[in-house]
Amino acid sequence: MSKTNAGRFFDDYKVGDVITHAVPRTVAEGERALYHALYPARGALYSSDMFAQDCGLESSPLDDLIAFHIVFGKTVPDVSLNAVANLGYAEGRWLAPVWPGDTLTSTSEVIGVKQNSNGKSGVVWVRTTGRNQMDVPVLEYVRWVMVRKQGDAPAPDTVIPDLQKSVLPGDLVVPEGLDFTDYDFALAGEPHRLGDYKVGEVIDHVDGVTIEEAEHMIATRLWQNTAKVHFDATNRPDGKRLIYGGHVISMARALSFNGLANAQMIVALNGGAHANPCFAGDTVRAWSEVLDTADTDAPGVGAIRLRLVATKGKAGALKTEDGKYHPDVLLDLDYWALMPT
Amino acid sequence: MSKTNAGRFFDDYKVGDVITHAVPRTVAEGERALYHALYPARGALYSSDMFAQDCGLESSPLDDLIAFHIVFGKTVPDVSLNAVANLGYAEGRWLAPVWPGDTLTSTSEVIGVKQNSNGKSGVVWVRTTGRNQMDVPVLEYVRWVMVRKQGDAPAPDTVIPDLQKSVLPGDLVVPEGLDFTDYDFALAGEPHRLGDYKVGEVIDHVDGVTIEEAEHMIATRLWQNTAKVHFDATNRPDGKRLIYGGHVISMARALSFNGLANAQMIVALNGGAHANPCFAGDTVRAWSEVLDTADTDAPGVGAIRLRLVATKGKAGALKTEDGKYHPDVLLDLDYWALMPT
Amino acid sequence: MSKTNAGRFFDDYKVGDVITHAVPRTVAEGERALYHALYPARGALYSSDMFAQDCGLESSPLDDLIAFHIVFGKTVPDVSLNAVANLGYAEGRWLAPVWPGDTLTSTSEVIGVKQNSNGKSGVVWVRTTGRNQMDVPVLEYVRWVMVRKQGDAPAPDTVIPDLQKSVLPGDLVVPEGLDFTDYDFALAGEPHRLGDYKVGEVIDHVDGVTIEEAEHMIATRLWQNTAKVHFDATNRPDGKRLIYGGHVISMARALSFNGLANAQMIVALNGGAHANPCFAGDTVRAWSEVLDTADTDAPGVGAIRLRLVATKGKAGALKTEDGKYHPDVLLDLDYWALMPT
Repeated sequence: MSKTNAGRFFDDYKVGDVITHAVPRTVAEGERALYHALYPARGALYSSDMFAQDCGLESSPLDDLIAFHIVFGKTVPDVSLNAVANLGYAEGRWLAPVWPGDTLTSTSEVIGVKQNSNGKSGVVWVRTTGRNQMDVPVLEYVRWVMVRKQGDAPAPDTVIPDLQKSVLPGDLVVPEGLDFTDYDFALAGEPHRLGDYKVGEVIDHVDGVTIEEAEHMIATRLWQNTAKVHFDATNRPDGKRLIYGGHVISMARALSFNGLANAQMIVALNGGAHANPCFAGDTVRAWSEVLDTADTDAPGVGAIRLRLVATKGKAGALKTEDGKYHPDVLLDLDYWALMPT
Repeated sequence: MSKTNAGRFFDDYKVGDVITHAVPRTVAEGERALYHALYPARGALYSSDMFAQDCGLESSPLDDLIAFHIVFGKTVPDVSLNAVANLGYAEGRWLAPVWPGDTLTSTSEVIGVKQNSNGKSGVVWVRTTGRNQMDVPVLEYVRWVMVRKQGDAPAPDTVIPDLQKSVLPGDLVVPEGLDFTDYDFALAGEPHRLGDYKVGEVIDHVDGVTIEEAEHMIATRLWQNTAKVHFDATNRPDGKRLIYGGHVISMARALSFNGLANAQMIVALNGGAHANPCFAGDTVRAWSEVLDTADTDAPGVGAIRLRLVATKGKAGALKTEDGKYHPDVLLDLDYWALMPT
Repeated sequence: MSKTNAGRFFDDYKVGDVITHAVPRTVAEGERALYHALYPARGALYSSDMFAQDCGLESSPLDDLIAFHIVFGKTVPDVSLNAVANLGYAEGRWLAPVWPGDTLTSTSEVIGVKQNSNGKSGVVWVRTTGRNQMDVPVLEYVRWVMVRKQGDAPAPDTVIPDLQKSVLPGDLVVPEGLDFTDYDFALAGEPHRLGDYKVGEVIDHVDGVTIEEAEHMIATRLWQNTAKVHFDATNRPDGKRLIYGGHVISMARALSFNGLANAQMIVALNGGAHANPCFAGDTVRAWSEVLDTADTDAPGVGAIRLRLVATKGKAGALKTEDGKYHPDVLLDLDYWALMPT
């Protein structure tokens, strides 16, 4: 028997199975510093203990996307090692802040399977939950991937989970104590509050960042995501490595500071598509569209639903005439963030 | 109204205005580790709690240039986004150590303006102050930049601040408690004390470091300096990014350990010029000239004034016959550091 | 007299001399995060405080190879600045865990010298010891290098130390409190315990990582290893920098997680050869051979002796017909690690 992990195939997933992902991880100041070094992240609440305290929190939590990447990275050896494609996300919710010193673990429940008509692969839906050292859930999300089938077993009964198009405003979890009543717009970097944004408004975030191989590999390893396509130049004739989709998410989100500096904390991931692959040498730009706004029960805290689009060229058409993503589009993400009202 | 920051133009600065720069930042162990990973920094006092305690400090502070870069980075969106050139520094003083866990903020007072004769741009002088979470100033310096003018307003009255050629020894601030009486030269790495250096002495620091795009972008983002010229390869036909001048300062200062291992803490920045642009692929070398020495009131602590020159070729002429910087010279910096007597 | 360090030559080493290496270093969370970002390290005990506590430790220590690189890096200016070749390692033992916040220093005793017949160089053996802030040894190892001779002094008496072929199982030091009785194999990532490995078994670790210049320079600086061959592109016509051998050790060890996830802590270095130089662009792969197994006194804790081979091509022959290392072999390392029984 081989001692190395060959990953799971379509045949290995049964609805109802719960997979414990390996390697718990303690995250701290070092991961925060690296996050700021790898992405032009400037959100004040994730940058300054003082600012976070003025917003009612004990100190500055780790960036919402650090939590996402760490929880996601653990699932790779069990969920996407043999994945042909990462098809989508839904029902993602941040449930509690992650603080420096927390230890994160990750489990996934198989909630859907559908064999493809060719019998060679199938789609698997999992609901992944990240927990801290007190077993408190900090994040959950549904992801579905297309995975190769290995054996000749008959197709399992198709189960397609019933997923919400978007997380309902009433289901958003606001971190305990968060209070934007005395929010300091000057220190945060922009004067725009929730009421200043109109549904349908589009913001071009202007700046661009050209990506290098060393950077995305450093980032992807930091999340203990070891999918070989991100690291091994011999996988492609041009020697380029396929960049982890989450790297593009973090880059685009950080770029969106310019125009959305007050969209402080991501609290829900409604959906997302990695529209085209990203490679070193691409210059990533981003634009956002305001999809919705909502109230929350927390003082001074509203919610804004945003489409975040990353491109490797200038901002332009999202889709081509045939309804497919424009070849320059890298990411189309739909999320809720908290913003002062 | 656009929600993104277009930066300030010459017309937007009035003498006496105080600008609060955005995004306070808590700095800790992670920033220290990254500083050591990005630059060959080996100064014992910024590397070891034990060594710092033996020098009378509570623990090892964060590197003096971490403080500088963090404070400087915050000013970029308000001061140099539309700058044509970074013209100079003066009257820089480190006023208190920055400790892991401190939160830094930054403000700038406009202290001078002078419109250029072409009416298209002008020079702006600002005095920037960095403060910690207790509102204690940790660093101040004057910087002047040439900025584009946007409108047709008449030229403002010219105000040129009266700046010291160099910080006077009596104005240097020695960190509270610093005591070099029992300084351990073996652990510090070199036997040379202040008395061993002669004014006019030139030290070639021998080593060279070739710079990669990934490294200077990681560094520059860490300081939340988001000037697009440092990140966007589409700005130039050759795809190279202009390297943040501060990256060259830190690289040269770290290289100067070899010959100046006991020039432990920078306490003043007398002046500096980014003589020529630096690009990835350049191999940075450095040499220093001793400009002056002075006493301080602290036990065993002297001060040494140094010219630090970074080049991209071998050490050689600083200027050409016409008085301009030699094309290989990247940096000409004038600073005071503390050294055991 | 030049103020810069020219390094020691063969003539400068005398058997019995003890060299105090410069620049003590406090290591913390930041170094840990960087280690995870630079290498695909996933060992649970070095990743999670919770997992380490369940194994009887106070918290997660810093990775065994962080300790090695920090202690080794300090020796470079005194031992290998003028080295022609790094010839070997022996009798390496990890003596106590390194915790975040510890300050490490390093000393070396010269234990052997042998001038080469050409009179131009010689071999020097040193036993290096790393200590923490309480002067407790955390690591010791013997290393021998070939160093250039500078003067015309007569050859010193040859002293060749008597070195063990391999650290004896009874000499392995198990960290105080370590207990694998309740070891969680699911969280660790693999089900294989010591009894599942057979002497002679070979494991191909499957994955490959292509190395970039920025990454190995960031790593090597982090260990304050300043040997110029690793940083200065002008040293070679092709502009490539020679990669620090320890970078390959850490990369190969991290890759060996896939098949050896439960080989948690390195406790001895029996020997090692940097068989061929490694350069940016090489894709590093690894395979391991089980050389021996042993018991320890600690509950549930066994020891496994492994040969770890790093290659820049596919796993293949270790040596060619003439007994030399195959040109694709980068590293041949022999070590003991602790594993649940």
